Amino acid sequence: MVSLKINLPFTRDLITSFIKEESEKIELKKGVIPLSGGIDSTLVTYLTTISLGKENVVAVNMPYGKLGERGMEDSIKISKELGINLEIIDIQKIVDSYFEKEVDKLRKGNFMARVRMAIVFDISKKVNGFVIGSSNKSELLVGYSTWYGDMAASILPIGDLYKTQVREVAKFVGVPNFILEKIPSAELWEGQTDEGEMGITYDELDKILYLLVDKRYKIDEIVKEGFDIEKVKKVKKMIINSHFKRRLPPIPKLSDRTIGIDFLYFRDYKNYD
Amino acid sequence: MVSLKINLPFTRDLITSFIKEESEKIELKKGVIPLSGGIDSTLVTYLTTISLGKENVVAVNMPYGKLGERGMEDSIKISKELGINLEIIDIQKIVDSYFEKEVDKLRKGNFMARVRMAIVFDISKKVNGFVIGSSNKSELLVGYSTWYGDMAASILPIGDLYKTQVREVAKFVGVPNFILEKIPSAELWEGQTDEGEMGITYDELDKILYLLVDKRYKIDEIVKEGFDIEKVKKVKKMIINSHFKRRLPPIPKLSDRTIGIDFLYFRDYKNYD
Repeated sequence: MVSLKINLPFTRDLITSFIKEESEKIELKKGVIPLSGGIDSTLVTYLTTISLGKENVVAVNMPYGKLGERGMEDSIKISKELGINLEIIDIQKIVDSYFEKEVDKLRKGNFMARVRMAIVFDISKKVNGFVIGSSNKSELLVGYSTWYGDMAASILPIGDLYKTQVREVAKFVGVPNFILEKIPSAELWEGQTDEGEMGITYDELDKILYLLVDKRYKIDEIVKEGFDIEKVKKVKKMIINSHFKRRLPPIPKLSDRTIGIDFLYFRDYKNYD
Repeated sequence: MVSLKINLPFTRDLITSFIKEESEKIELKKGVIPLSGGIDSTLVTYLTTISLGKENVVAVNMPYGKLGERGMEDSIKISKELGINLEIIDIQKIVDSYFEKEVDKLRKGNFMARVRMAIVFDISKKVNGFVIGSSNKSELLVGYSTWYGDMAASILPIGDLYKTQVREVAKFVGVPNFILEKIPSAELWEGQTDEGEMGITYDELDKILYLLVDKRYKIDEIVKEGFDIEKVKKVKKMIINSHFKRRLPPIPKLSDRTIGIDFLYFRDYKNYD
């Protein structure tokens, strides 16, 4: 039996300390969170509120017209519940002034995610804050997110939690049932669900990912644990095909020290001498 | 005498091979280049045309109304000269549907850069290509570029060339004089010049960067070479304060293998077993 059980108080405390420390290092008090009303961004909003205090949280909900109505209503409820600031910005006019006619829904969805990123970074500048993203480990590993869109943030506090773990932590910190019970969806078009689109449930996906990535199991070892070989192969392929999204753009080496190759510093490395 | 002399034929060949190899690895033939008409994006357009062939280059010029007129005219000339495809998309309507009133020009400039990124990635999807960015080493090191905006691309072929070296390579591969002679500007507002805004000439900046980064000189050693101590300190501070732009967003470690910490693969690493 594969178990993704985690220590809930430890997880909560580690993530909230992380957010606080990052805020102190970069000397920006306010956390700006793109809040869709889904479980991931709601959990990040709860954790940030614990970490920075409600006066330092700015949630930004960005519906695309009617498509985001449910998310908007839920974001309003969450913000009231937590006593945090909420900005609501409808992106429909912005997006529609680019796409004059109907396009491929994947293209439109990616464009929407990138426009949301641009807006949330703009608001972070306006309020003198930093952007707190909500990508989780499951979607980051399989590449089920938009490069330079929802993946783009100042920090990713739940980036090491699988989706099924996100649910547990969310429940633990008091995220309400109307959020916990939502069917996961990137909401890039009507009726989209993550599991439908990926063709696998999060429960199964997370266990396969855990065995492949954390436990370094080989495909046949995972099959022995009772998983379908085609599903395991598919998940592995999704990881491999999305490596590029988890890297900085490559630069060809021409000099003694090249950015991303041998000129590498942590973001908080300081040496003014 | 500090010299940033480089071997021009070698540099051209290494960069064009790099573009070709990346294109083959990711199995996408077409290079999509945000072409502002400045020297950096023009050089990248020339190198990509050498590398992939003119039929595989799609340049995208994205003026903001009248502000980008000169760049648009120059982009048309370059595209005709090279025989490549050019798309022109005015971003004014998109940007103005977000900012209802006049804002801080830095905020507007960053938003414009991010909207351009969103468009160019959308076009890359449309034509089944990849995005080739034009960030150079000088601007990447001092952070004089928009995070998740112009820095965001699939590859950055001139990311290891200082601005003064960009000029030499551009001249060498035949970039015309009307581009070579332009005063460098991010063109985020009327009258903006890079050197004016940074308070230092590229000639001086590049030499200081070279000594600090490539040669690992200490501040007093650079001063001994004849540079002003205040300028050297300022450049060093710009490098330190922009480390965050050259990193992926940090994730707090909770599991056995964490993205960006100990789950790290090159984008072309493949192992399907």
